[in-house]
Amino acid sequence: MLNFSDRLIESIKKKNSVLIAGIDTSIENIPDYFIKRFYDKEKSEIDNLKTILFEYNRRIIDAVEENVVGVKFQAAFFEQYSYHGFEVLHKLCEYAKNKKLVVIFDGKRNDISSSAKGYSNAYLGETPVFGKKIRFFEFDAITTNPYLGQDGIKPFIEDCERFKKGLFVLVKTSNPSSGDFQDLMVEDKYLFEVVAEKVYEWGKNCIGKEGYSDVGAVVGATQLEAGKRIREILPNSFLLVPGIGVQGGKVEDLKYFVDSNNMGIIVNSSRDIIYAYKNYVHSDFEKSSYLASKSIKESINAAIS
Amino acid sequence: MLNFSDRLIESIKKKNSVLIAGIDTSIENIPDYFIKRFYDKEKSEIDNLKTILFEYNRRIIDAVEENVVGVKFQAAFFEQYSYHGFEVLHKLCEYAKNKKLVVIFDGKRNDISSSAKGYSNAYLGETPVFGKKIRFFEFDAITTNPYLGQDGIKPFIEDCERFKKGLFVLVKTSNPSSGDFQDLMVEDKYLFEVVAEKVYEWGKNCIGKEGYSDVGAVVGATQLEAGKRIREILPNSFLLVPGIGVQGGKVEDLKYFVDSNNMGIIVNSSRDIIYAYKNYVHSDFEKSSYLASKSIKESINAAIS
Repeated sequence: MLNFSDRLIESIKKKNSVLIAGIDTSIENIPDYFIKRFYDKEKSEIDNLKTILFEYNRRIIDAVEENVVGVKFQAAFFEQYSYHGFEVLHKLCEYAKNKKLVVIFDGKRNDISSSAKGYSNAYLGETPVFGKKIRFFEFDAITTNPYLGQDGIKPFIEDCERFKKGLFVLVKTSNPSSGDFQDLMVEDKYLFEVVAEKVYEWGKNCIGKEGYSDVGAVVGATQLEAGKRIREILPNSFLLVPGIGVQGGKVEDLKYFVDSNNMGIIVNSSRDIIYAYKNYVHSDFEKSSYLASKSIKESINAAIS
Repeated sequence: MLNFSDRLIESIKKKNSVLIAGIDTSIENIPDYFIKRFYDKEKSEIDNLKTILFEYNRRIIDAVEENVVGVKFQAAFFEQYSYHGFEVLHKLCEYAKNKKLVVIFDGKRNDISSSAKGYSNAYLGETPVFGKKIRFFEFDAITTNPYLGQDGIKPFIEDCERFKKGLFVLVKTSNPSSGDFQDLMVEDKYLFEVVAEKVYEWGKNCIGKEGYSDVGAVVGATQLEAGKRIREILPNSFLLVPGIGVQGGKVEDLKYFVDSNNMGIIVNSSRDIIYAYKNYVHSDFEKSSYLASKSIKESINAAIS
């Protein structure tokens, strides 16, 4: 089996797209007409929630499939519905995987090594159960938070090597207060630069045949100057770039995030895709999401080509 | 309803204990005789897993109840079993809550504000579903990671205020490589000190009638010098202190973590309690966990009195 970075490159070329659809759906933002179509008064509120959350997101995946290289599931939006939401996430992960999409778990997990191993078991590897090993999820990659340092990241890296998976470590995030700590000066560097240097080290034994590391970084599209600097520190890592659109990141700036081959990025868009019906065809969310993903894909391609 | 810090102080006084039992159970560490007792060949592997994970931890909670002020559930150990593990976590949270224990979700969650809100909805607050609001979990407090800065923490703080809940922000963790970033010098301070100062700011509007903030910090028992310094920066916050026992933290050092009232800490022990049968009475895990929790409680009380 190919390394994660090689599979990603293959998919990007095949799809001619670096766009990732972020599946961050809250039930409150699903159009009323769709809820009415699936809501069954004979069933419990929770059963309706599970059905509608799955059916809506499944259709979004169908609608955008042609225009995206993968999908990223934001854990929080499923966790907000407790284990019911996690069950839907499980089904959607399988659904997207069967469509040969690159599937990312955006959970920003972090902990001491014994606990980090638990997270890695769940999302990248396998969990021992009664002497057998069970693969619960089939994600290709996960996002992690670096604050605990190397030993909290190592269990994920080991599973990346063993199971040919990918890791995206938070380096410079897209949110307004990302500078609170990430922009602190450590001697003559920003903290995010020190983190990026560690990401380089952590990933240098997971290089695919195309020369890219399976350990990448999350860098917000809103962080232009940081993006340029991180690109220098991580010349052969993929950057997962969220934050275009609603959050204020500009597609035109993406040319500063790509590497010397005009590669090495995947770009997430969530709300502009999953709720595109608010801006496009109100009565047809699938068509809207298709049009939005096509338009975003094309503008990204124009910006980085 | 009382603030989280006030409820915590009330419980500490009632129990004469600052000990928290960390429920970090992997099915592979549950004694064979217990698994055999509950394993039903007519049922699926997953149903057996759920039953045994619940029944074992439920008995641990019963066994230690008298000696602990609360329980902390390590999310990773439940997540490693996917949504099945989360369902067990949900039942155990309810079970512990009904025993009036302080119940903490140790998930170290973090994200941009819209996603952080999802996590906070799940564990501290309530989630909108079809126009109603559902409380999925009844946790008293959650752990969070500060790397994204203030706007990733704010949704949790707002729910702390609204629902009288608590927050423990990672400041200095117990693991060997916690120094990779946390000990970097930012001008004349360690990064963890800068984080502690922010925690002070974030918590200064959530003060209970006893004068303690509902926003506390996670500080590893292995971090003696950091602990002293963080205590100075956070004179009226609770410190959640993991890392005694297996991880190498010493109970005697806890006297440096308490505040001027010999208060302001809760101390987590996981493996020494949940797997105490390995060190005590092999054939009786409940008695073993009872004895271990009693002994740890007493040595902590002796160290900080």
